[in-house]
Amino acid sequence: MSDKQTITPVVLCGGSGTRLWPRSRAAHPKPFLPLVGDQTLFEATLARAGARAGGRSVFAPPLVVTGAAHLAHVEAQSAAADGTRVIVEPAAKNTAAAIALAALVLPADAVMLVCPSDHHIGDAAAFLGAARSAAELAKDGWLVAFGIEATAPETGFGYVRQGEAIGATGGFRVASFVEKPDLARAQSFLDAGGYSWNGGIFAFRAGDFLAELGAHRPAILAAVKDAVAKGVWDGQRFHPDAAAFAACPSESVDYAVMENTARAAVVPAAMAWSDIGNWQALHEAREQDAAGNSVKGRAELVDCRNVLVESDGPRVSVIGLSDVIVVVDGDEVLVTSIAGVQKVGKLSGALNQ
Amino acid sequence: MSDKQTITPVVLCGGSGTRLWPRSRAAHPKPFLPLVGDQTLFEATLARAGARAGGRSVFAPPLVVTGAAHLAHVEAQSAAADGTRVIVEPAAKNTAAAIALAALVLPADAVMLVCPSDHHIGDAAAFLGAARSAAELAKDGWLVAFGIEATAPETGFGYVRQGEAIGATGGFRVASFVEKPDLARAQSFLDAGGYSWNGGIFAFRAGDFLAELGAHRPAILAAVKDAVAKGVWDGQRFHPDAAAFAACPSESVDYAVMENTARAAVVPAAMAWSDIGNWQALHEAREQDAAGNSVKGRAELVDCRNVLVESDGPRVSVIGLSDVIVVVDGDEVLVTSIAGVQKVGKLSGALNQ
Repeated sequence: MSDKQTITPVVLCGGSGTRLWPRSRAAHPKPFLPLVGDQTLFEATLARAGARAGGRSVFAPPLVVTGAAHLAHVEAQSAAADGTRVIVEPAAKNTAAAIALAALVLPADAVMLVCPSDHHIGDAAAFLGAARSAAELAKDGWLVAFGIEATAPETGFGYVRQGEAIGATGGFRVASFVEKPDLARAQSFLDAGGYSWNGGIFAFRAGDFLAELGAHRPAILAAVKDAVAKGVWDGQRFHPDAAAFAACPSESVDYAVMENTARAAVVPAAMAWSDIGNWQALHEAREQDAAGNSVKGRAELVDCRNVLVESDGPRVSVIGLSDVIVVVDGDEVLVTSIAGVQKVGKLSGALNQ
Repeated sequence: MSDKQTITPVVLCGGSGTRLWPRSRAAHPKPFLPLVGDQTLFEATLARAGARAGGRSVFAPPLVVTGAAHLAHVEAQSAAADGTRVIVEPAAKNTAAAIALAALVLPADAVMLVCPSDHHIGDAAAFLGAARSAAELAKDGWLVAFGIEATAPETGFGYVRQGEAIGATGGFRVASFVEKPDLARAQSFLDAGGYSWNGGIFAFRAGDFLAELGAHRPAILAAVKDAVAKGVWDGQRFHPDAAAFAACPSESVDYAVMENTARAAVVPAAMAWSDIGNWQALHEAREQDAAGNSVKGRAELVDCRNVLVESDGPRVSVIGLSDVIVVVDGDEVLVTSIAGVQKVGKLSGALNQ
């Protein structure tokens, strides 16, 4: 293995969510859908992690952390990524534990690049540049968060406030992590500058992460160590011990580690990122025609502006509407105003899958 | 037969139209769909024509005029109407010829009540009252149009202008038939009073109709006479001769007869009528909840006003919309603003059935 020389992508495939229902459902969750372009979000994440520079791969084969429910999707969609290994979580225990599983499987000096599997990144070159900067900082012992350029006063994301620059690395110390703000505060961050979105992308050496986890959350580290020690490999799959993992506290990596470590850094990244967190975000990430409409599937739009149509089969004919989302998926049809997308997850259909 | 004592409903089942696409289609046309309530429009038409008063039927068994394409629907949905006879048109030749076929099958002194099969009448008692008045006038030799109470400045209907009252019959001479007006003119009719909508419901004796048709459109009468003379009965079905009927000019009964006869009368009818001419009209004819929404099929509406949902299977979830129609029918989904309903018939799906 060349983990010392390269970056090991650690791809987290967690819960499925309800905000892109009915297209995203328990049976076909968001990461495994071709929501933007022809690749699924998971495939695109792996493809970014397969980037080559000068004929030599920048990245080692990826390590995917997922649950049994998603395993079939993961293996079907990672067939093209040589050497992919999969850690099958016996239970969902949030990101601190998931990353710890990966860190314990890797050599202590491996640089991990932790990536959610359900985000869209429009500018792959910018992602690669940020990954390299982050990896360099990780090799110096920093725990690095990607600081995603804040392009709007979003209230749905946490923010990272930059501190002083770390030499000429392009990175900064983290002054603080900021919880999801209200709109006025989010706007003040944008006005002030020096704030970026925390998109859940991190880089650090496996050993450094485990050391900080042990310092701040020893119970998590102990449970995950036990689960890995008693775990079994089955080909490219690793199965941590279920009973041991069941004892692990459930906490996000932000709370457990990043907000507590004295070695937190941030690398700014302007890479056309979106968490595709709801139908409006997906609409914005997609290519639109001159009237702002985006269509996937068979459709006819007459006198429409800023309309998204997504259909898995039936033709959708729309007349005279603006700022509307129409989704047809099997036995469910969703029609919502753009303003209403936040309520999609509360629909009976989304709640009772 | 008791045609002398009663009224014979002549139910016209013509073309299918495209304005209620995709629910109404070539394969399942408008008259045969349960668009308002549980009965289809055709079934409701027959049910009105089965009205009884004092234990004695006001109406003789109905005579349906339709094309071969609709025959299966007609026979399936008229099974409950004893003695129904069906004239199967070899071709569509508009209403003058269709009514002439029926008139030639009936005794000359039979009072015909000509009814379209795809309208909704909310007040059956008012319909029956108007039918009786019209029948009395017909027995005196009048050709009677129902004058449907004009409740809005509709530009999609022809109007009937009342002339002088005909004694104490409740009817009036027709001063003139007026083509579909523009909005200003339609409003002036409403303001002036004495104008009603021409909904295509007529009453006259068979012999009187044929005499007026012969006087004003001898070619139509001759062709239809020939087609009936060479036609054949097959049980309750009558098949006019196709070659003879093919020679018949195609013209509406309004143009061919009603606008030309000196014996035109009008009977006012306030009977909660609708031609269900588009999705907006259907929405208005349906029961609505307090927010003005009407739902047929599985649906969940959140923050919606004046929304119609119709689904033949899939659940439809709608959030945050007003004045919108959503229709799911097999492989077609329609989403239109109420203002856009006039364009439904121009959609690719509606045009290429």
